[in-house]
Amino acid sequence: MQRGKFITFEGGEGVGKTTQIRLLTERLAARGINCIKTREPGGSPGGEAVRHVLLSGAAEKLGIGPRGEAILFAAARADHVDTKIRPALDRGQWVLCDRFMDSTRIYQGEHTDVPQGLVDILERIAIDGLRPDLTFVLDLRAEIGMNRANTRRTKGEIADRFEREDLSIHKNRRNAFLQLARQDPARCKVIDASQTVDEISFDIWQIVERELLLKEQGQTALLQNEKEA
Amino acid sequence: MQRGKFITFEGGEGVGKTTQIRLLTERLAARGINCIKTREPGGSPGGEAVRHVLLSGAAEKLGIGPRGEAILFAAARADHVDTKIRPALDRGQWVLCDRFMDSTRIYQGEHTDVPQGLVDILERIAIDGLRPDLTFVLDLRAEIGMNRANTRRTKGEIADRFEREDLSIHKNRRNAFLQLARQDPARCKVIDASQTVDEISFDIWQIVERELLLKEQGQTALLQNEKEA
Ligand SMILES: Nc1ncnc2c1ncn2[C@@H]1O[C@H](COP(=O)(O)OP(=O)(O)O)[C@@H](O)[C@H]1O
Ligand SMILES: Nc1ncnc2c1ncn2[C@@H]1O[C@H](COP(=O)(O)OP(=O)(O)O)[C@@H](O)[C@H]1O
Ligand SMILES: [Mg+2]
Ligand SMILES: [Mg+2]
Repeated sequence: MQRGKFITFEGGEGVGKTTQIRLLTERLAARGINCIKTREPGGSPGGEAVRHVLLSGAAEKLGIGPRGEAILFAAARADHVDTKIRPALDRGQWVLCDRFMDSTRIYQGEHTDVPQGLVDILERIAIDGLRPDLTFVLDLRAEIGMNRANTRRTKGEIADRFEREDLSIHKNRRNAFLQLARQDPARCKVIDASQTVDEISFDIWQIVERELLLKEQGQTALLQNEKEA
Repeated sequence: MQRGKFITFEGGEGVGKTTQIRLLTERLAARGINCIKTREPGGSPGGEAVRHVLLSGAAEKLGIGPRGEAILFAAARADHVDTKIRPALDRGQWVLCDRFMDSTRIYQGEHTDVPQGLVDILERIAIDGLRPDLTFVLDLRAEIGMNRANTRRTKGEIADRFEREDLSIHKNRRNAFLQLARQDPARCKVIDASQTVDEISFDIWQIVERELLLKEQGQTALLQNEKEA
């Protein structure tokens, strides 16, 4: 049986990750490929429990230090990788994950109280060699993404509610995602997320076909030829 | 102000760690040295919360993997170090800790499903350079330690309640502690814990005086001489 493929979706709030994961799942299902959707942080029960400690406000009340917090996130990811993602791939399922290592780099990179060396080691520990086969970086002007996320949440309110400061954080994140993508172009594909839902879905599908499905077929064909020869 | 000293107490159940930490605190107090007692795992509120996730049985129910578990323990220790131990030392307090890195090595070393390389990296991450100034390894024949721990718990029951298998685990742990101590003799002092409470306390005190108090005085005197010269 063939090992599944691991695809991650990255980008700011409201760029369309959840929407596109749903559409890609449908396209793959039509090809007879079984997928699971998952998300970070908290895609496994253990990861969810850790996330709960971190996000329930308990972390602040308990005064967990920034290193402790970064290591807890790594534990949550290691659990997600070990108990959910890797077993699914081993069963031959494809895994589509809403945010993964790149989001951690961006968001933890903003907190300078954790040394970059530690962030790097924790990433290696957490993913344990399991790099995504493909990562889609959905790229959108920060104003538009915030507008979308805002609309989704409050049905009608508009983005100028956000203060300038918030906007500049989102702009910096967008640039940081683009920079990460440039550093690893074989894995990270930047998608213009200002297009319509269908256009984006089509772009993603073309890349999945080219990078994962056709290459695989090519390899299978090669193996077949070798056997026949 | 002088930085405090960090002393850890290691050894199996019932060897006398809690008893000796109490006595050493008293002796140091008589010298005007302010101590805090703490313990692993869970000596800080954040560490305690993590420990709760791990020990409430939640870990088993949630199916946390062995790597996730090892990383969680590291997060608990990092938090303990960052939020409790290091700040106390910085304030000039001495810290007496019931179990620390050596116990983790022994107990995690028994679970071969976590690679030793990961255990080593996690130790380095968790302690973040904060090695104990002195470690007392209280050494006792496993049968006696089990008897003591058992007596403490059930007032009168005797050790032959323990099965042979349990005993062999305790024997292996004792040997593992002795081996660790041999690898780092400058830090780790093996104490014959089969002696009376007072004899053990005296042995420990002699070492604390020689290794920490007199050396410190020596250094202070040297500094004083340099100033005067
Ligand atoms: N290409 C698009 N154009 C316009 N609106 C979109 C587009 N993609 C998604 N949306 C809408 O924007 C909002 C955020 O999309 P979502 O997929 O939840 O983004 P994310 O998961 O990245 O936060 C939703 O209301 C969604 O229907
Ligand atoms: N040197 C000793 N000789 C006899 N009993 C002891 C001695 N030290 C401690 N005990 C008793 O043994 C039990 C375990 O001691 P404790 O200090 O709690 O050990 P630990 O903290 O290492 O588990 C307690 O009941 C204690 O009073
Ligand atoms: Mg979403
Ligand atoms: Mg004790």
